[in-house]
Amino acid sequence: MIDETHIEALRSLLGVKGLLTAPADMAGYETGARYDSGRAAFVARPASTSEVSAVVAYCVKNGIALVPQSGNTGLVSGSTPDGSGTQGVLSLDRLVAPFELDPVNRTLAAGAGLRLSEVNRRLEEEGLFFPIDLGADPRLGGMLATNTGGSRFLRYGDVRRNTLGLTVVLADEAGTVLKLGSGLRKNNTGVDWKQLFIGTSGAFGVITECELNLEPVPRQVATAYLVPSAPERVSDLLVAMEQALGSYLSAFEGMSGNAITAALSHVPSLRNPFQSGVVPEFVILAEISRSSPSREGEQPLDAVLEEVLGAVFERADTLLADAFVGPPQEMWALRHALSEGVKHSGRLIAFDLSFRRGDIMRFLARMKAEMPKQFPDISICDFGHIGDGGVHFNLVVPAEDPRLADGGFEGRLREWVFKVAVEDFGGSYSAEHAIGRKNQVFYDLYTPEAIRRLAAGLREITSPGPLGSVNF
Amino acid sequence: MIDETHIEALRSLLGVKGLLTAPADMAGYETGARYDSGRAAFVARPASTSEVSAVVAYCVKNGIALVPQSGNTGLVSGSTPDGSGTQGVLSLDRLVAPFELDPVNRTLAAGAGLRLSEVNRRLEEEGLFFPIDLGADPRLGGMLATNTGGSRFLRYGDVRRNTLGLTVVLADEAGTVLKLGSGLRKNNTGVDWKQLFIGTSGAFGVITECELNLEPVPRQVATAYLVPSAPERVSDLLVAMEQALGSYLSAFEGMSGNAITAALSHVPSLRNPFQSGVVPEFVILAEISRSSPSREGEQPLDAVLEEVLGAVFERADTLLADAFVGPPQEMWALRHALSEGVKHSGRLIAFDLSFRRGDIMRFLARMKAEMPKQFPDISICDFGHIGDGGVHFNLVVPAEDPRLADGGFEGRLREWVFKVAVEDFGGSYSAEHAIGRKNQVFYDLYTPEAIRRLAAGLREITSPGPLGSVNF
Repeated sequence: MIDETHIEALRSLLGVKGLLTAPADMAGYETGARYDSGRAAFVARPASTSEVSAVVAYCVKNGIALVPQSGNTGLVSGSTPDGSGTQGVLSLDRLVAPFELDPVNRTLAAGAGLRLSEVNRRLEEEGLFFPIDLGADPRLGGMLATNTGGSRFLRYGDVRRNTLGLTVVLADEAGTVLKLGSGLRKNNTGVDWKQLFIGTSGAFGVITECELNLEPVPRQVATAYLVPSAPERVSDLLVAMEQALGSYLSAFEGMSGNAITAALSHVPSLRNPFQSGVVPEFVILAEISRSSPSREGEQPLDAVLEEVLGAVFERADTLLADAFVGPPQEMWALRHALSEGVKHSGRLIAFDLSFRRGDIMRFLARMKAEMPKQFPDISICDFGHIGDGGVHFNLVVPAEDPRLADGGFEGRLREWVFKVAVEDFGGSYSAEHAIGRKNQVFYDLYTPEAIRRLAAGLREITSPGPLGSVNF
Repeated sequence: MIDETHIEALRSLLGVKGLLTAPADMAGYETGARYDSGRAAFVARPASTSEVSAVVAYCVKNGIALVPQSGNTGLVSGSTPDGSGTQGVLSLDRLVAPFELDPVNRTLAAGAGLRLSEVNRRLEEEGLFFPIDLGADPRLGGMLATNTGGSRFLRYGDVRRNTLGLTVVLADEAGTVLKLGSGLRKNNTGVDWKQLFIGTSGAFGVITECELNLEPVPRQVATAYLVPSAPERVSDLLVAMEQALGSYLSAFEGMSGNAITAALSHVPSLRNPFQSGVVPEFVILAEISRSSPSREGEQPLDAVLEEVLGAVFERADTLLADAFVGPPQEMWALRHALSEGVKHSGRLIAFDLSFRRGDIMRFLARMKAEMPKQFPDISICDFGHIGDGGVHFNLVVPAEDPRLADGGFEGRLREWVFKVAVEDFGGSYSAEHAIGRKNQVFYDLYTPEAIRRLAAGLREITSPGPLGSVNF
């Protein structure tokens, strides 16, 4: 518990709406999107950068730990308090200003508390959008703190690539406010400090505002399901598609048959798109798009995609004949339902891995070969972003499996998967979810001593106060 | 002068080819591409990361200052020694390994001493390239240390966006070698440390190797010269072109009539492309390109560009009728000759500025109005990258002008331009040349105290030894 005088002091800084202490009010801030939950000493909801600064300064001076929380949709326990009841949640949910569009610059100055869906809804009329495509609907601050990537990384990159400026509050006794960068696209006048706050889970400072790059909304989109002739031909297929399509190609997603089957079983609105009714072992969802409106005399994008698939099929043995072009909305609906389907198939143990693009299918083949020996009766329901090397490597254990009662089972399984992915394949144990309490242990295990020393030094010069859920 | 025992010790680390001390051998390393020159105590030319580490460690332990030098094509006196004769040059020119292409991953692991032209020549057969388009031919290490942008930023971004991994040597007593990132495109496992070494002129460590993103070489290119109906309509023209062309648009460059006239006068191989013979006040070079090969039935890119220009001309009063599509090589030849032409028109005082895109033409208008009053008889020969906000703002003073004999004249002129650009317009005083001795004074002037403190702290935890030409 936290001293009542602190609660009073914080309330006087933030007003009644700005501080929650009743258990019922705090509940939604104490539980994460997927994993464990904790207990908050209070929930601070500052409505401006200067209020954030005041709260942070007060808490640093009084040794009160704060965990910044944005949309709370993360999957690594990065934004919820621990179980001690001594940490305050610093919610960004009232930081919804500014919202200033500069259409000539194609940039938006935005409060970190705005949700992705709201940002894009408000930009729709201008024909612009913030081009990060995700299943979840996070707030901007959390997207920045985790450097989300998503399904159109191949075309648009991650949050880092699309961030031109940040306002951050440091956890020092002054609650120092830094304005790092602005709307300039080219600017090389020293260290690009904003980079340190992107993808670092709020450990070095609290992001309160940002300036984002926007892109023209695609006006023409075509999608196809491709069935590779064999899993090991997927990389050749990717290269062939990139050579034929260049920057038209905006997504190249992989979906395992197991994940598709799980989605079809558990999401009633979907229909099986495969004519034979048989779900293939592995399917690629390829998307091409143009941000230019279609012009008279121009070949429709569906026809372009069909022609290219025909040529790829002719040229090399990478593709089975049953590739087909179909309606983008329906094809993406299946892709986006995979996560939901997998979650309902049993007990989910999920990994957010990445590899060099050529290694993904090799890793999956090795897992398919060794999993039955090491951990039998586990279903591999992977899907992900072949085009950028990302794999949501999902393992489903039958719900009634007695091993789930063994407290050490999940840990041993995770350790083994990470060992193969990181040590044998040089992959990443956190491709796009960043670090939270959930994978602190793997940060500690896989981060070289020299880098951990640097991180501790950086913490000291930026935010020496107790901030965030990660110990970098 | 430096003690002969140090010279002997360094020679034993690097071998005879690895250490230059004869004045004639060192001369090329002492003089920069455009500005002043200095005097080197020695030139160290390590041939591997471990030799760099050994040299740096030796120099840190013995208090010998090192200035890393890459292709030495920079324009801010960042890579040459000062005049004291006590600094050693640490040349990257023998760091030409590795050169390892991963075609599926579309990445290249490369030594920092490779020249851009050589990298792209060796990649040509694969249909890939490192997509940074520059007039100069730097080595990779310097491109990274200055985060070069160039003319295709609009499509491909800067060096930062295209860097997946770095190997750096810190200036500490151990000459610590850090391997930061690798070929992974999605990887969020802590601080993205490589970002600190990109664009910081070698002050925090020496870059010895890198892993770079490659892009498919464009297979179809079309270019046009556009004459805006008035300078203030350039931003509307840019927006109209982006709306019509989306990601086809790969360059949108501005060229002042003065710069064009200078190039036509001083570069004999050029011909005046304007039918009337009269050079317009301001011309845009627009380029569209596709990395996909042209397919039968597809509209040629020249025709696409002509059609779009026709529609833009119809729709709004942004464009004069005399826009014309022409051969890309010839159109770019003029653009690339501007720098050379301007240099030969008198005494050049050059600025590398950037703005929000909508501010560029406003800044230029203000300069055109005020320059004759503040600093008469100076010709404004600007050109640059309207699409990304960059302006090479060049001032040409007549060669025999008596003001050039006044030591304070250039400083006063620079101060005034920077004041308007940075203070009044929120622009950058170094868009893509980074910081060197040349603009240290503006770094000191325009960098907030809190940021300078952070930079000093960062220096302390990374490279406390004497390294580089900049005092961050």
